[in-house]
Amino acid sequence: MVQTFLYRLLFFVVLMKEEVRILGVDDAPFSFEDESVMVVGVVMRAGSYVEGVLRSNVSVDGSDASEKLVEMICSSRFLSQLHAVLVDGACFAGFNVIDFQHVFEKTQIPIISVTRDEPDFEKIKTALKNRFKDWESRWEVLNKGSIWVMKTKYNPLYVRCVGVSESEAKEIIKLATIRGVLPEPVRMAHIIASGVVRGESYGKA
Amino acid sequence: MVQTFLYRLLFFVVLMKEEVRILGVDDAPFSFEDESVMVVGVVMRAGSYVEGVLRSNVSVDGSDASEKLVEMICSSRFLSQLHAVLVDGACFAGFNVIDFQHVFEKTQIPIISVTRDEPDFEKIKTALKNRFKDWESRWEVLNKGSIWVMKTKYNPLYVRCVGVSESEAKEIIKLATIRGVLPEPVRMAHIIASGVVRGESYGKA
Repeated sequence: MVQTFLYRLLFFVVLMKEEVRILGVDDAPFSFEDESVMVVGVVMRAGSYVEGVLRSNVSVDGSDASEKLVEMICSSRFLSQLHAVLVDGACFAGFNVIDFQHVFEKTQIPIISVTRDEPDFEKIKTALKNRFKDWESRWEVLNKGSIWVMKTKYNPLYVRCVGVSESEAKEIIKLATIRGVLPEPVRMAHIIASGVVRGESYGKA
Repeated sequence: MVQTFLYRLLFFVVLMKEEVRILGVDDAPFSFEDESVMVVGVVMRAGSYVEGVLRSNVSVDGSDASEKLVEMICSSRFLSQLHAVLVDGACFAGFNVIDFQHVFEKTQIPIISVTRDEPDFEKIKTALKNRFKDWESRWEVLNKGSIWVMKTKYNPLYVRCVGVSESEAKEIIKLATIRGVLPEPVRMAHIIASGVVRGESYGKA
């Protein structure tokens, strides 16, 4: 485990950038009548070439997001090649909260959450209180780790990372971004999940 | 209709290649117990940037492939921007045969079928005879237009096209191919359809 992690770090440090493999993950659109929601993962070499597509399902407002994400990563043939996991936001399928610390501990792969909208924690706390008996444990997981702002050419990104430093996370995000603000693996995961469920999607970066 | 077609031709002739939009389409893996099969379309700018993902469903061994493909193309927001449709093979979901002439007439967008395996028409005819009462009409559609071989750096591609000349079809295929043999929009459609249905896919070109 430690060896694999050191290898990854070394690999990244020597900057074989075009070989860096990143998994981007996003959930599909859903309605609250649905029981489960599709989650799509896209493995890309840097931000330019898609090597694989993964799919899982998580329950709406459930508590299986972390477990399903770990399973998706660890059961993949790409596991030993992945340098980072990029996720859009901190939850799948409503308030199915992702425990980034747990996912990193289980996979030993750095995980970075990016979002274009600044999280409104007061609003989130109120929504959790109104809808969940176990709101305190969800809130606790959501509050793990600090969120920092990354400037881009366009709008800022709100980032949280586990398993890498802020500067390394910035490097990874820059490397994976072709156009606009969102890293390509996350944009691709979004466009695929959305297109497959809705019948058509188009992806602005 | 004619105007749109001429515009497309002109656009391609003046070689604004990086702006050429191509739709690649492929079906998902299925078993013969399934009633319908997912078909995925990927809109790419040349072979490099995914702009949209489309999804439809066709019936296993049915007769709705052409109609569903026309619907997918014509209902898409990308319709007026598409320069060509690339399809892997001549059928979806078993022997749900695509009538390329019909699809071109309805959409006015050139359609090109590519496959890496040389079609064995004797074997196909026997399979059709054994499985379908309406084998003759399927056979007739399958035999429309001639198949020609396109040399690549690696293995040859077997190509059929309607709405463009052989040399134009070759240009479009070259433009859309990044690595290996398969044009990128078709490789992407395959990798997405397969990954979403099976849970994991990896795409060799």
